[in-house]
Amino acid sequence: MSNRPEINFASDNVAGVAPEILAALTRANTGTAMPYGGDEWTEQVGTILSGIFEREVAAFPVATGTSANALALATGMPPYGQIFCHESAHIEEDEAGAPEFYSGGAKLTVFSGENGKLSANDLAARLASIDPDSAVHHPLPSAVSITQTTEKGTVYSLDEIAAISQVAHDHGLTVHMDGARFANALVALDVTPAEMTWKAGIDVLSLGATKNGAMAAEAVVFFDPAKAADFEFRRKRGGHLVSKMRFISSQLIGYLQDDVWLSGARNANAAAARLDAGLRDIPGVEILFPVQANMMFVTLSGPVLSVLQEEGCRFYTWGEMPDGGVSARLVTTFNTTEEETARFLDAARLGAGLSVGSAA
Amino acid sequence: MSNRPEINFASDNVAGVAPEILAALTRANTGTAMPYGGDEWTEQVGTILSGIFEREVAAFPVATGTSANALALATGMPPYGQIFCHESAHIEEDEAGAPEFYSGGAKLTVFSGENGKLSANDLAARLASIDPDSAVHHPLPSAVSITQTTEKGTVYSLDEIAAISQVAHDHGLTVHMDGARFANALVALDVTPAEMTWKAGIDVLSLGATKNGAMAAEAVVFFDPAKAADFEFRRKRGGHLVSKMRFISSQLIGYLQDDVWLSGARNANAAAARLDAGLRDIPGVEILFPVQANMMFVTLSGPVLSVLQEEGCRFYTWGEMPDGGVSARLVTTFNTTEEETARFLDAARLGAGLSVGSAA
Amino acid sequence: MSNRPEINFASDNVAGVAPEILAALTRANTGTAMPYGGDEWTEQVGTILSGIFEREVAAFPVATGTSANALALATGMPPYGQIFCHESAHIEEDEAGAPEFYSGGAKLTVFSGENGKLSANDLAARLASIDPDSAVHHPLPSAVSITQTTEKGTVYSLDEIAAISQVAHDHGLTVHMDGARFANALVALDVTPAEMTWKAGIDVLSLGATKNGAMAAEAVVFFDPAKAADFEFRRKRGGHLVSKMRFISSQLIGYLQDDVWLSGARNANAAAARLDAGLRDIPGVEILFPVQANMMFVTLSGPVLSVLQEEGCRFYTWGEMPDGGVSARLVTTFNTTEEETARFLDAARLGAGLSVGSAA
Amino acid sequence: MSNRPEINFASDNVAGVAPEILAALTRANTGTAMPYGGDEWTEQVGTILSGIFEREVAAFPVATGTSANALALATGMPPYGQIFCHESAHIEEDEAGAPEFYSGGAKLTVFSGENGKLSANDLAARLASIDPDSAVHHPLPSAVSITQTTEKGTVYSLDEIAAISQVAHDHGLTVHMDGARFANALVALDVTPAEMTWKAGIDVLSLGATKNGAMAAEAVVFFDPAKAADFEFRRKRGGHLVSKMRFISSQLIGYLQDDVWLSGARNANAAAARLDAGLRDIPGVEILFPVQANMMFVTLSGPVLSVLQEEGCRFYTWGEMPDGGVSARLVTTFNTTEEETARFLDAARLGAGLSVGSAA
Repeated sequence: MSNRPEINFASDNVAGVAPEILAALTRANTGTAMPYGGDEWTEQVGTILSGIFEREVAAFPVATGTSANALALATGMPPYGQIFCHESAHIEEDEAGAPEFYSGGAKLTVFSGENGKLSANDLAARLASIDPDSAVHHPLPSAVSITQTTEKGTVYSLDEIAAISQVAHDHGLTVHMDGARFANALVALDVTPAEMTWKAGIDVLSLGATKNGAMAAEAVVFFDPAKAADFEFRRKRGGHLVSKMRFISSQLIGYLQDDVWLSGARNANAAAARLDAGLRDIPGVEILFPVQANMMFVTLSGPVLSVLQEEGCRFYTWGEMPDGGVSARLVTTFNTTEEETARFLDAARLGAGLSVGSAA
Repeated sequence: MSNRPEINFASDNVAGVAPEILAALTRANTGTAMPYGGDEWTEQVGTILSGIFEREVAAFPVATGTSANALALATGMPPYGQIFCHESAHIEEDEAGAPEFYSGGAKLTVFSGENGKLSANDLAARLASIDPDSAVHHPLPSAVSITQTTEKGTVYSLDEIAAISQVAHDHGLTVHMDGARFANALVALDVTPAEMTWKAGIDVLSLGATKNGAMAAEAVVFFDPAKAADFEFRRKRGGHLVSKMRFISSQLIGYLQDDVWLSGARNANAAAARLDAGLRDIPGVEILFPVQANMMFVTLSGPVLSVLQEEGCRFYTWGEMPDGGVSARLVTTFNTTEEETARFLDAARLGAGLSVGSAA
Repeated sequence: MSNRPEINFASDNVAGVAPEILAALTRANTGTAMPYGGDEWTEQVGTILSGIFEREVAAFPVATGTSANALALATGMPPYGQIFCHESAHIEEDEAGAPEFYSGGAKLTVFSGENGKLSANDLAARLASIDPDSAVHHPLPSAVSITQTTEKGTVYSLDEIAAISQVAHDHGLTVHMDGARFANALVALDVTPAEMTWKAGIDVLSLGATKNGAMAAEAVVFFDPAKAADFEFRRKRGGHLVSKMRFISSQLIGYLQDDVWLSGARNANAAAARLDAGLRDIPGVEILFPVQANMMFVTLSGPVLSVLQEEGCRFYTWGEMPDGGVSARLVTTFNTTEEETARFLDAARLGAGLSVGSAA
Repeated sequence: MSNRPEINFASDNVAGVAPEILAALTRANTGTAMPYGGDEWTEQVGTILSGIFEREVAAFPVATGTSANALALATGMPPYGQIFCHESAHIEEDEAGAPEFYSGGAKLTVFSGENGKLSANDLAARLASIDPDSAVHHPLPSAVSITQTTEKGTVYSLDEIAAISQVAHDHGLTVHMDGARFANALVALDVTPAEMTWKAGIDVLSLGATKNGAMAAEAVVFFDPAKAADFEFRRKRGGHLVSKMRFISSQLIGYLQDDVWLSGARNANAAAARLDAGLRDIPGVEILFPVQANMMFVTLSGPVLSVLQEEGCRFYTWGEMPDGGVSARLVTTFNTTEEETARFLDAARLGAGLSVGSAA
């Protein structure tokens, strides 16, 4: 099986840029444009997003997901705020303290919870336990952040989102959605962007594009534009107001037009579903969470791992077991091919000692 | 003169992307690459910059000039630090407090000084006035930042840089150069990158590319890699570790290879020199600082301003005078054409009541 | 039982100032003294503490325990640091985010653990799970903080402290002890201050005095003076460099001289031991943690609670149960009397329906 | 003149505690009291201050002037705020960046101005120069801070305060008064506390007591209690919520009752007036600013300095001149005696070669 190209399921970030998005960016490279967002492309992003979300939104392009999350959370939050999230949340686990930095020192308080999901009941219990008489001795509960698609590859149902929002709003908290994989959840649930956000109580969204085919583009979307007053100062001060903004905004245009984002997410989800279906029957492979979008967690036996690696399959692993097996994360993308998933499954079957005649 | 395209001298940021740089970026869109800088393009940026600067440097790509400056200054600085700079410095005037934010609350102490330049003597006098016995009552002098090309369009000589560095190092301060227009100064002085930086005492450089033809790419360059230990945590935490980093790094490669950066800067400087030479002889126009790179400041009489605006010339103005005149800033770029500067000068001459036959 | 004075076990902070300490403070009110710690009393505090700890220490008086903890932790820590502590730690639960504020946004990562104690094994497991290749995506493990006496009224043994320190030092972490109730633990273990701190691996101590009879005085003690370089800037900048410092320092002198601190702690611990012994046999009362110093946690049945309140006993309660019972915390102090504990126990016995003839 | 006690005019902080204030503090040391301000003394402070200021105020005791200023300014200010003040302001010069720290990185923009005073015209000109279209590129103008008594020992007139407040309020800025020497200005102007504060437009006051005879006590006073919502979280988080608060509050009670504060300020001002009158006629002494309260700045010739030092007079000096002369600051206090000022003047006269028979 040598001389065949590597199959990289390490992250959605390993993929390049979707051709439609690169084309939109290239088209924007014409003439001069006023800097810092005073251009027509940035204006158009606002119009498109207001259309997609079926209400007037305040939308701000940025280049990274970490900045989107940190700025979205910091806006309107006091430095002594408290943010509730799942213990596996990207803001807790993978952003090197960016929410703490942008908020000026807020505290993230984490919950465990099945399948990578925060439970509305756990949140309610925690908030109910707070003694208002001693409030000043504690960070002030200010926001809840949920991740859709979760960091375990699962998807909150609309009811689950609404229940969390209800608890949060009853206690005066803002509800933030980290939508780094928003499109993957959207097509998984087959609902509208409005239904998955403000209609379910979301106040502010980090709308990802990079992981799903953009180069470096995300949008922070406030569903109540009045609550975004603070944002622009914080973005500039954080160094995230890109001068030649048209090249961020045009990516978002290329992403959102012609259903490019939805097609890409469907492709990624379908690839994960093929992996799920195929791996499910292979001895030595265990699937750890329901596979609902484009990411899955598995354990692989030593022999399965070994053949996958020989075949040039790349993915993150951890926690080596006595037989050489590992835990692993597999992420598919907007441009994962059927051939790639088939090759991966054949290699896994081979490693498990199964016949792979169909792959010949 | 209608129907002719606008001439935009508002900023170097109004220009698009140089074709060589867009081509380099497009070439990088092939296959998969490990994210967050674990890719071959990012490695190549380090190699190229070590070559250009004639020593091993630690170089980190980021997408914006504000983040480059703020991260460069914050690295190694205590939150109670004090940064000395000219009162017109971008870090003081145009970054919404980003240095304060990234440093955790350092104080910028500003100096006036001719032609937008910090004077080594002024700095020395200030540092000499500090009473070490009461040090704890004041922010701790930690860094000096100079801007090359300055915000007034002038250029520090090598001797001026060396004198400032000497004073700074004598007092244990780090020396930072905001090189948003580094290439413009470099070709103006006709020196090597090494001469204009570490050989003159610069410790850390914000090397700009965006203003000179890149899309969104700068590099923070530490001339002593040991002093960069802190940087990567701060970059990630600030949301400036771009996931698909190859698309930032490939811009820098396209910028630095084949003298693209130097050619662009020479074009911009030459355009400014043409404006300088032409405007110098026009009644109603006064040139405010020596024009040494690609930016100039002028006062324009009301009539001159009026014809320039009719002709579609765009630039920042302020401080309206009784005759309708204004102060104005003119910035030329890597792709400013001879036709544009000629049209601009003709319009100015026309406004001043001069004949413009040559432009017919 | 009416007309008898209230018995306040709400906190060690409800007590006033020990007479020896008020006398020392009053004696310091003579003549002029240079401000901000340039006085003889402050110098003497350093001398006394170096003697008590059997090595040269760098010691800094402050007025509050929260500032002592936050400043001790922030010193030498990067803003992207990570602090490990027990989930009940004062720095996590009761300081409104002061450690996050003073550090510039560090993250507190908490552990559960029996009897309010962090386990060296849990810490080791956590630190071992960190992948150095992705370090930059996470806050940097920087410090461990343990509380001695713990927030549950228990005391770490010297072996437990040493084991935690060993794990921490193996990973390059600083070890901080929150000693708000240091003296109570010291007399409980019957060891020397040196044994309970640097000999067991503690790097920096918040040495409490306020809870044990001072008015408003704590000392931050660095066992390696070289590691305190940062502290003075941070204290001043935090507004904790008291101008008439002699009145803080003289409290510490009055506290540490003539074993005042040890006598006060012994009195408080003995009072708690009496409560422990007495409550242990009362139906309707459950003692939740080993009582090893001057603080205990109990559940009280509704009837017991009711009589205690009638008797004028004051303490914090939470979590009402169906029979009207509650959880409660009882804290004794340097000046709790035998009469107070006896009256408290009699009231509890009466509430439980026991005879209290002995209290007549 | 040997064997006579030193005369310390270095600072108002070198003095001890006024006997009335120490007595009030000692009286508060009775029985138990709920911590963190839940005590009767703290409540009384609010009542007294509402009476003194002739309206309901929200008042919060803290132990240091730096914390009072930093907390007062940070409350309600965004981290990207901008504070305007005189270049000699304590918040700019003597607090090690505390305002930057507490605000989360706000910028202090300073003005020169005669006699240590900010000019309403200078402030108006600066605010008028701001281009609202580029607001996001700059820290947001948020507050003005003036110091009464100024750092040069001068006093703003009511009209000067009102003019600054007017400009500030016209631009939506909060007006803060650093009243570390509030009482000295009050008795100098012979006006009411209300007239010198909210009736002249002050929104929030740092009311000093420490420099005027307290041990460690200041109060932050919000004239609109609704604007103080933020304060309590910030105070706790900064470590400035003193647990045994009654001992801070009782100092303020002792200070404000029975005109102790006014008597102390009158004594200090009278002593400075004696120095002013006496020094004015001595060759080799120059008085640098109008002496309006309890602090004066002078230049002293070498011979005058020499005799003053021999006599045991202590004060801060700087800027040695060729003849050995210096600039110097002299500060008098609530307990400076007539004998001290007479001895000081005699020594100065002696140094200048004048006869001092009257002092025999």
